[in-house]
Amino acid sequence: MKLYFITGNKNKLEEVQSIFPEIEGIDIDLPEIQSLDAQEVIREKLRAAQEKHIGEFIVEDTSLYISGLHGLPGPLIKWFMDSIGNNGIAKMAAAFNSQSAEAKTIIGHAKEDGSVNFYEGVVKGKIVIPKGESEFGWDPIFMPDGYTQTFAEMTREEKVNISMRRIAFEKLRENI
Amino acid sequence: MKLYFITGNKNKLEEVQSIFPEIEGIDIDLPEIQSLDAQEVIREKLRAAQEKHIGEFIVEDTSLYISGLHGLPGPLIKWFMDSIGNNGIAKMAAAFNSQSAEAKTIIGHAKEDGSVNFYEGVVKGKIVIPKGESEFGWDPIFMPDGYTQTFAEMTREEKVNISMRRIAFEKLRENI
Repeated sequence: MKLYFITGNKNKLEEVQSIFPEIEGIDIDLPEIQSLDAQEVIREKLRAAQEKHIGEFIVEDTSLYISGLHGLPGPLIKWFMDSIGNNGIAKMAAAFNSQSAEAKTIIGHAKEDGSVNFYEGVVKGKIVIPKGESEFGWDPIFMPDGYTQTFAEMTREEKVNISMRRIAFEKLRENI
Repeated sequence: MKLYFITGNKNKLEEVQSIFPEIEGIDIDLPEIQSLDAQEVIREKLRAAQEKHIGEFIVEDTSLYISGLHGLPGPLIKWFMDSIGNNGIAKMAAAFNSQSAEAKTIIGHAKEDGSVNFYEGVVKGKIVIPKGESEFGWDPIFMPDGYTQTFAEMTREEKVNISMRRIAFEKLRENI
């Protein structure tokens, strides 16, 4: 049984395949519902995918959770990036006296029978003013605890090594 | 041909029927997609409604747009309310030196053939620290320009009289 990771993002697919080479990529356009609960967003995507395609699918959500903002931006991070960007998010965190944040990957794995299991990877860190360039949106403002560089300042290998995505996909691999 | 306003909110339905008595309410559970573009959110709801039901439908989105936040919270307002609430939204506006805001109702009207027309009502105002009680979420922090009371401090009649929802529904009534 092939395992399909649904994504339209080649960077994500490459990163995931470097952790879990057996996974194949597939680009299916899926509705993204409004929720601060990533599991709910993922569950709805998997349901929509399985309405149209037979198979075993994986959907992931990687989001930034700022402690003082009680769940924001969370799965809505794309819209924060599109509107106020990294500078704005850093300003927001400062206004709420909340440097503390979590970068979290949640994976939903839907078997052919429709049952879904979730796996989570978390990296704790803090929000800083943007440093470094990155093709991954908010990497310039996230500095993992124990490091003096943001994700965007690290090499791709350094980041992939400690990333929330690796933690989550390794859990998935151990459990299927 | 009956015109159905899709909502699960009795307060909204009463307000709309006080403006446009011929409209009937119907409660259909519809997916709410992620977007900062209210028309896109509405269009997707109307599409989903017409997949399952035959008829002429209305969906509205009433959201708060804070000028300095470039479109936020917009159609994502529910999640800002759920997480940081009125106090948090007021704090955010202050952090961005942006009292200026718009309360906007956008109505989508889908005819039986699937074509959709949009009508908009806007009230300009400012974000203040919460004042007054209200069953409408963010009324306590929105003070319309030219008034010294927030929506929450006004009587229901006063508010309905000057509201963005009235402006939008009157445009709808004139055009169908």
